[in-house]
Parts: sequence; C-alpha cells; structure tokens
Amino acid sequence: MGTKAMDPRKSNSTPTTPFFLLFSLFFLAASHDHHPLDALTPFEQTQVQTIVKSLYQNVTFHYVGLDEPDKAAVLSWLSSPQTNQIPDRQAFVIARADSQSHEIVVNLATKEVVTDKVYDGSGYPTLTFDEQTAASQLPLTYAPFLASIEKRGLVSDQVFCGSFTVGWYGNDASKRVVSLMCYYINGTINFYMRPIEGITFTVDLDEMKIIGYRDRVVVPVPKADGTDYREAAQKSTFDNHLKSITILQPDGPSFTVEGHTVRWANWEFHVAFDMRSGPIISLASIYDHNEDEYRRVLYRGFISELFVPYMDLTEEWYYRTFLDAGEYGFGQSAVPLQPLRDCPENAMFLDGYFTAQDGTPAKISNVFCLFERYAGDIMWRHTEAALPGDVVTEVRPDVSLVLRMVSTVANYDYVIDWEFKQTGTIKVTAGLTGLLAVRGSIYTHKDQIMQEEYGTLLAENVLGPRHDHFISFHLDLDIDGEANSLVKAKLQRVRMTDGRSPRKSYWRVVNETAKRESDAKIHLGSGATEILVTNPNKRTKVGNDIGYRLIPRTVASRLLANDDYPQKRGAFSKYNVWVTPYNRSEKWAGGLFVDQSHGDDNLATWSLRYSHYCSLSPREGKIINLVPYVRGSKC
Amino acid sequence: MGTKAMDPRKSNSTPTTPFFLLFSLFFLAASHDHHPLDALTPFEQTQVQTIVKSLYQNVTFHYVGLDEPDKAAVLSWLSSPQTNQIPDRQAFVIARADSQSHEIVVNLATKEVVTDKVYDGSGYPTLTFDEQTAASQLPLTYAPFLASIEKRGLVSDQVFCGSFTVGWYGNDASKRVVSLMCYYINGTINFYMRPIEGITFTVDLDEMKIIGYRDRVVVPVPKADGTDYREAAQKSTFDNHLKSITILQPDGPSFTVEGHTVRWANWEFHVAFDMRSGPIISLASIYDHNEDEYRRVLYRGFISELFVPYMDLTEEWYYRTFLDAGEYGFGQSAVPLQPLRDCPENAMFLDGYFTAQDGTPAKISNVFCLFERYAGDIMWRHTEAALPGDVVTEVRPDVSLVLRMVSTVANYDYVIDWEFKQTGTIKVTAGLTGLLAVRGSIYTHKDQIMQEEYGTLLAENVLGPRHDHFISFHLDLDIDGEANSLVKAKLQRVRMTDGRSPRKSYWRVVNETAKRESDAKIHLGSGATEILVTNPNKRTKVGNDIGYRLIPRTVASRLLANDDYPQKRGAFSKYNVWVTPYNRSEKWAGGLFVDQSHGDDNLATWSLRYSHYCSLSPREGKIINLVPYVRGSKC
Repeated sequence: MGTKAMDPRKSNSTPTTPFFLLFSLFFLAASHDHHPLDALTPFEQTQVQTIVKSLYQNVTFHYVGLDEPDKAAVLSWLSSPQTNQIPDRQAFVIARADSQSHEIVVNLATKEVVTDKVYDGSGYPTLTFDEQTAASQLPLTYAPFLASIEKRGLVSDQVFCGSFTVGWYGNDASKRVVSLMCYYINGTINFYMRPIEGITFTVDLDEMKIIGYRDRVVVPVPKADGTDYREAAQKSTFDNHLKSITILQPDGPSFTVEGHTVRWANWEFHVAFDMRSGPIISLASIYDHNEDEYRRVLYRGFISELFVPYMDLTEEWYYRTFLDAGEYGFGQSAVPLQPLRDCPENAMFLDGYFTAQDGTPAKISNVFCLFERYAGDIMWRHTEAALPGDVVTEVRPDVSLVLRMVSTVANYDYVIDWEFKQTGTIKVTAGLTGLLAVRGSIYTHKDQIMQEEYGTLLAENVLGPRHDHFISFHLDLDIDGEANSLVKAKLQRVRMTDGRSPRKSYWRVVNETAKRESDAKIHLGSGATEILVTNPNKRTKVGNDIGYRLIPRTVASRLLANDDYPQKRGAFSKYNVWVTPYNRSEKWAGGLFVDQSHGDDNLATWSLRYSHYCSLSPREGKIINLVPYVRGSKC
Repeated sequence: MGTKAMDPRKSNSTPTTPFFLLFSLFFLAASHDHHPLDALTPFEQTQVQTIVKSLYQNVTFHYVGLDEPDKAAVLSWLSSPQTNQIPDRQAFVIARADSQSHEIVVNLATKEVVTDKVYDGSGYPTLTFDEQTAASQLPLTYAPFLASIEKRGLVSDQVFCGSFTVGWYGNDASKRVVSLMCYYINGTINFYMRPIEGITFTVDLDEMKIIGYRDRVVVPVPKADGTDYREAAQKSTFDNHLKSITILQPDGPSFTVEGHTVRWANWEFHVAFDMRSGPIISLASIYDHNEDEYRRVLYRGFISELFVPYMDLTEEWYYRTFLDAGEYGFGQSAVPLQPLRDCPENAMFLDGYFTAQDGTPAKISNVFCLFERYAGDIMWRHTEAALPGDVVTEVRPDVSLVLRMVSTVANYDYVIDWEFKQTGTIKVTAGLTGLLAVRGSIYTHKDQIMQEEYGTLLAENVLGPRHDHFISFHLDLDIDGEANSLVKAKLQRVRMTDGRSPRKSYWRVVNETAKRESDAKIHLGSGATEILVTNPNKRTKVGNDIGYRLIPRTVASRLLANDDYPQKRGAFSKYNVWVTPYNRSEKWAGGLFVDQSHGDDNLATWSLRYSHYCSLSPREGKIINLVPYVRGSKC
C-alpha cells in the first residue's frame, strides 16, 4: 500500500474516532503474507500499468484483476503454506489499443507478458469512468443540443448528462458507442427525477465524438419540488423521532483479519475485492469441533453478472437492457461505506483498489465493512416445561458475521451482504435501494393515460418504467472436497389405495442426481423440489449424504422472449440454477466482453456446448450459477 | 391485575435488573383505560369463572377469551373514545359439562349469560393442561404398561408420557380421547430423543381412563448419550468464543405503551393476548405526515390455525396430524421469554393470562416482548458521485419495531414476530426451532433401510419423520377504510411482431380484481402474479390505487390428497391465500372445534358456501387468510 493512489472518485470525508483509527493501525501492522487469491495490491497494479504501457503507445485499461491461479495449484499451496511454493502472481488485463480489445496476462514474478490476445468476437470491454465522464461532457458544447435546450426553455449550465450502454439489436456494432441521457439539475440534486426526454445521443468512445443526434419530441421536464432526498432537506414532520440505538461490543469484535483471511466463530474465509464483481469469497470453510479440522464449503463465490432489462419500448428507452458487472464494473462502482449508517458501530472497514483508465490504482475507502450481526433474534431455543422440577429454558441468541459492500450503478444502490452463520449457513443478500430510473412524460394524472406507457405514473410528469434485476452468483462449492453432485430432492405425493392404513396419502422424497448439464438447469418454484449439493464420496456416521441445501427466497423467472436481443445477452436469466463443470475461464455469466455483445459467448451458450458430450461426473468440480431475482419496481 | 393468579406452569426465575423493574413499574402506573379490544383481565376471567360455575356443577374451561365486539361498534367508539359508549365487555367461553361442549357468551357489564349453546357438530374443544397432565400419569399405574416396560428392560420411574391428539379417520368419534406417547428420561432431559415405540394408548379424557392399550412391537430406545441440549452439558470445544454483543438505547426506547396501545415512529396498534392464537394485533395504523392523520392498515391480525401433518404411516404415527391452535391452544402454550436471550437488552416485556381448566386466570410472565430492532441494516441509501462538488451520501439505517412471542407445543418452539417498519411494511415471521419429534427405530445405519421408513435416520436408532407446518394468518386488512378489493397483478409477456421496435418482447401488468371467492383462492409461486389489497374508493394524487402488497417468502404447497382425512381437517392448507367476506364468527381456519373434527366446518367449507352466492363486492370488508408454510425438517 505504499504507492499513493489517485482517487478519481471524490470521497466524502467522514469523521473518524480513535476507535476506527485503532482498527486501521491494527490492520496495517498485521503481518501481510501473500495469499495466492489476494487481489492485486496497488503496487502490483502499478507494475501492470508499467508493463502494459510499454507494449502500446496509447492504451486504456478496462479491467485489471488477479489472474486466478488454477485450483489445483492453490489447494496444493494451501496444504502446506510454509513450505509449498506459492503460485506466481499473475494479472489479467483487458485493455484497448488501436481500437482493438486485448486480453493480456502478465506474470508479476517475472514481469513478463505471458499472453496478449486480440479479441475478435462480439462485444467490448467494461466502460471506464474517465471515458464516461468525457462523453457526458460533449453535449455541453454541441450546438444542436444547445438549441434543443433553448427550445425547451432550459439553461445549459443546469444540464447534466450521463452515459448508458446501448446493447445490441442485430445492428452493425463495429463502433464502440454509448448513448447519453441528460437531466436538469436546477433546484435539486436528484437529477434522475428531472430527465430531459426525447433526445438521443450516440457517442463513439474511441473517437470521443458525438456521431449521432436526434431531438424527436419535447416532453415536459418534471419539477424539482419534493425530489431532494437529503435528510437536511426534509420537512421536520417527517422525523419519526427515534431515540438512538447502537450495537456495542465492549470487548471488541470476535473476528480476526490476517492479511485477507477472516476468522470468526467456526468460519474461515478469504476475501478479495475485484473491480468487476465486487467481493470475492474464497476457501470458506467451517470448523468441525468433533474432528478438530476445517471442512471446505465454498471454494470461490462472487457476483458473476447482473441483467437489468427495462420494459419501456419508447424510442429513447427500448435499448436499456443493462449488464451492470460487465458493462459498468460492479466492483469499481462500489462506494465508500459510511460508518454508523451503512454499517453498525462495531464494524471494521477494509479498503479496495480498482484500476483507472490510465492504469493507476484508484482507492475506494471503506469499500467493505465486516461486522458481527445481532438483531436480537434467536438461533435456537427450547423450553421444557413437561418434566418434574423447574422449567428448563435454553436459548442461543443468533449472532452472525456480515461482509458488506454497496455498489451504486448510476441511480441504483445495491447492498450486497455475505452473511456467515454459526449454524453453517452462508446467506447472500442483494438489497436494492437508491433511486428509480424514471421517464419524463406529458401526463399529470393516470386517467389521461390511454395507451401502453410501460410503467406507472409516480408523480406529475414522472413515469416509472417496469424493469427487472437478475443477479447471477457464481458459486464453486466444494463441499468437503471437489467432487460434488447436484441433487434434486423431489417431494412426491404417494396415494395409498390398498386400505392398509387409515391414511390415504403421504409425501416422500425422491433424489435425482443430475447426470448431464441439461438435468441441472433449474426453474425454482415450479414444484416441490429442493436443491442439494452433495459430496457423494462422503457419508455421515449413520450413512447419510454430506451436503448443503440451496435455499431460495422469493423466486421469479424472466418473461422476455428467448429470441429477444436483450434476452440473448442476459440468457443466464432463463434458469434460476445452472451447473457447469469447473472451467477457470468461464467466470462471467454474460460473457467476458459484454458491452454490445451478441450473447454468443455466455453461460447459456457454454451450457449448450457441454450438454452434448459432458456429463456431470462427480469426479469433476462443479460451478453453480445461482440467479436470484429482484423484480423491478412497478410502484 | 389485582387477583393473584394461579400459575400451573412453573416459571424459571430469571434475575431482573433495576432496568426491567423500572419498566414494569412504568407499565403498571400508566393509566389503564379500557379499550374494547383489550384481552380479558384476570379479574374479568375470575368473573367469568364465577358466573359459569354457577350454571353447572362440574364444568371444565377449555377456552375463555374476549367475545370480540362487532367492528362497527369498535369503530364507532374509536371515532370519539371520550364521549362514545364503549361496547359492553363480553367473554366467549368454550366449556365442557356433562360430556357436552358449550359455547357460552357472558356479558361482563350485566354479569348475565347471553347465550349458552350446546355444540352438536363434530369435534371437541381445546385440551387443557390439567387433563393432559392427568392423562399422562395414567400409564405409571397401569399394569399392562408396567409389564411392557419391564419387558423392555426399562425402569418405570424413568418413564415420562405425553398426550397427543388423534385426529379423525372416519371412525366413531363419540368419545373425547387422546393417545399417549411415552419416553425414557434416564440420563438426559431430552426425552423426545428417547421414545418408547410400539405402544399405543387410548385415553378417554372425560372418564380420565385408559380405554385402549396395545403393545405391538419392541423397538430399541435410542441412547441418552449426546442428546442433552443444555449449554452447561456441552463440551467446551463447542464454544465459538464470541465476545459479548449488545443492543443499547442510552435514552431508552422510542415506543410508548398506553394500556395495550403501542405507539412507535409512524405506527400505532393495539395488542392483546389470546389463549388460542397468541398475539392479536388490532387497529394497526400508519401516520401520514402530509395529512397529519393515522391511516388504517390492519384492523385485526392473528394466527388462525396451524396444521402439522406427519408423513409417517407406521401404526403408532399415522394419525399424527396436529392442529396446534385449536387442539393445544397456541397462546396458552406460550412460554416466558428470557431477557437478553429471547429478546435483546432494550426489550420491554408484557405478561399474558390464559384460563386454566378450573377457570382460574393463569399468568404467563413475559409472554410478549417489544423491542426496537437494529440489525445494522440499511433502510434506504444513495450515493451521488456524478455531480460536480463533493460526493453526496445519504443513508437511513433500518430500525423497526418487533412484538415477539414464543409458543412451545411439546417439542417444537415457534417464534412469532410481528415487525413494523418505518416504510409502512408489516412483516410477520414464524420461526421454527426446538426439537424434532423422532421415532425410535431398529436401524443404526442408513444402509440397513430397505423399505420406506418415512424419514431420515438422524442418529443410531433415531428416525426423523417427514412432516409439514402450515400456519394460517387471519388478516382483516382495512386499507384506508373497510371497503377493499383483492387484486391479482399479473405480469404478462407481450410479443412484438410488427417490427416497429428493435425489441421483440416486454412484460406488462394486467390487474384482475377478484369478483368471487373462487377468484381469490390463490396458489402462490404458480406464475408471475403479485397479490394486492387495494381500496378502490381512494386514489393517490396522480390517480393510482391505494393499497398494500402481500409479499410471500419461500412458497410451497401441501401435498396430501384432498380426500385424505387430515387434509380435510387442515383444508386451509390447500391454497396460500383465501379471501372471505367479513364474518365475525369465522375466525378459526380449522373450525371452532378442531380436536377429532371431521373438517366439515372450516375455511375451506365456508369458502364453498360463499362461492355460490357471494361476490367480493368492494363495499364489504374482506378477511384474508394467508397461509405461509414451513416444510418440516427432512434433515
């Protein structure tokens, strides 16, 4: 952490107490032995920058992250970290030079470029902040736009624009373009509520030039009044007058962080920050008190892609079908967590580093927080009042560990929690908050609406378009070892017809082990089926399977047609669960190059490829893509 | 609270701090104006006891609770509590006298018996603790059983028995019977893990006599070793060494309790304890800052019934299909909550009173706790980094209010939380913990099992039978008034075929207002449908419906055949949501007399009756029965 990192994201300076300072010091002072799964340090990122810049005169960096070592090498090292060779640190880079996308692997031990492949498929890399900022400033000196602004009676110095990916609709996608949407700030910071509709921009990012412009229709800009969400701007009557409440740990927290390995209660896991996916949990293992050893649960888990298609088919909105991780970088979009607000008083904070467009490491302070969670809930209890003597009451309060990150992608704030419970459960939550993306409209009352407008009128001149959020989690579960099976435990009614019993029915469980990829494409909620990942080579003492159950919460499935362009790109949303054999290169459910991609190299297409010749042999590892879902607000 | 109540349930004496004492004093000192929905006080229960005992020489009390006044009378009183007449306090009693079940209404103002109806339908009242205790002691002086014990090499003073309801299987149910299950304590308090299988008892409760006995087969009693769940009995290696964590409110809590009305943040509601259902929430209303008035959300909400059918068809288990509220009294089975364990440090406790068999009020100390919940979570947030100037970060931490009760019905502990959120959400949670009901077995390893054994081998000689838990919540929602509609908001794919748009599909929402009962019988999870309760006579400023959304979590449906006897009795489990017109007498989803009932007078049968002539006119109020579901452990 020696290099001073340039921080293009302005940070909110938050007051720190001596308590937090103490924690920072503790973290820095702890011995920092490299772990092969550690994220690249700022120093390593700078090395990458130097090496790659020596290859090309003008190069932009779109992704820099750890080139994950092969699992076998990691497990080998892990078996004896003191003596075994740590796999060479390598970086994987997606860069642009001469209008070409490069996939570059750099060996940081030898300082050599291992591979440099020019990508010749569909799609482009993740957008950088710098190019988005530059693109969004182009309108302010673009004469046709200034005329459009004037026509609408607006002042240009109150106009602010943002960039949006365009997807792919069968068109020629040989230029790397984005569209722009402009907003009117005047009188509020909540510019998302004041869109300037009816205008389409196409910006060529490589040329950094407006190459298309259309002012189709004038639509009223919704008013500023009542849109400011800042606490200080609220009427005092909105205060619910709550007294202070805090979570205290007088003796400090129970977890330790050594390098990037977290230990708490009966859990141990490694955590890393990645600029595309955010938090990566590795080697999550649970301590078995009986055997006095850690047992592996999750080798690697991270957000693999998000798919956010809007259902608004108007001219300026139809193409809005975002893939937030691959297009915007879910990790680089993370924001500094605010102590006492985003995380409770007993939280510890960790910084993260992404790579800016010019290859410089960029710090996000407080990108993760780690805290013990106590909501006042009960983990287990029993009251026994039946026996003679005193009533026996046994209660174990529920205390768990949470690793949290918040990513703000334009208007939406995603709260990602990885929660580790003492019962052995890993609970992953994606919370959606922030602001809706709204379309300005002529309507001031619902009764005026006589045609499909694709959403709900939320306020005068403000339509809230319907949309979905699908989040795909890549889970490499290694329950007690690498050879796992996916089992569908089907609950089936059995009718009794022979009159042997006064009962006429019961239900039983029939286990089906998935043999082929296609067996393991699962729609949740379509029947009484439980999804298990078992280790068929291990048994409990009395002979039962060892495994974990995947427990979904609210389940929903995608509604877009399979042949609709956005659905081809976000095809991972077709099923809630997919299983593929372990393949280190197949990490991103929407594909590696997602912006403007054709959807021809993603989880769905890999799955087709496999279904013909691969079986889900228990001897191979499995990757599980779990696609929980949040239905976009229809208000 | 003047009368000293007999407490047949021995209470665990827990140390109280001055803090708790202060709260108790505050609660007693507050002015106690009667509210028409208040539960009967111990004094009122004693009045009922005197009045009913004067009617019959030998009478047993099976249910005593508030005879809920008609909604119109309550709302009328509420409109001007100072001047309007409070409806007369009346008690509803289910009593047994001369082997007959009586439904008695007593007017506590006039001290008169209003009605005394002898029930002539199927089924019997809730069991009392006294008769269950008496029944469970009969085996210990029953010679055939003592012989069975000796045959098994067990000592009778280590034997403990419990009573279980028998359901109905088309047999002559003219006797009010229970079955008994016996356990071996020797060496553990966890007798549920040491069942003495193969023995069937039938006990006539009215005669208090064993009228049936069969020792069918000897099965090994599972061993005691490793079954004790007390913390003090655990090996020290099981300690996860967590440091202390507590929730503090240095200025005290933000809620007030006046009589039985709770006010917190923007919520106000009335709470009562009922010996059959547990917590009853009434008149839950949310404060509208803009209009400076409270708006009704929930008129009355409570647990209406539970259905817990086991799937084990062996001779001694097939009949186990429990309806915990009507058979055992879910409220009277509540247990004292342990401070700092069941509820966090900032909790306040409330006592409750049920009626014992002889009509005496019986106190359950700390039956409810009320606390502000802060789990360190985020209610709403947004980070705005796009504008010039400093980054704006706004975060509202999530603090809510919880009313909690725990009911222990034999082996299972149910944790019931009513959570009120500042966003206006009411979240009801039913947590299941405690101990499994297990069947003793000959097997010591899974590989020995060659036939259907209806469950999983959990340990040597211990089978965990499969089963379900269905919980029906009766919700009388009065969103902004009594006239509400049930709306199914169906998400539908629309295919674009005219090539007007580059998009080929989108989804829209089509609202269907339920017109008949049958429209409103809903299986959740069977499509992309959202369930709304709206007030069709009110609109937002821009013309949208006013309403609430019912948001389910994990959804499942029952698997028993419709004609299976237990499914007839627990027929409310057939759908996840039912809507019936407001009818004060239709409170209990399994019917009023549930023990050994034929299932001919419950939610399903009422619903059939209505479907022919009633329409769900928006002018009438609606009762919504929501049936969330917990799949019984299959381990």
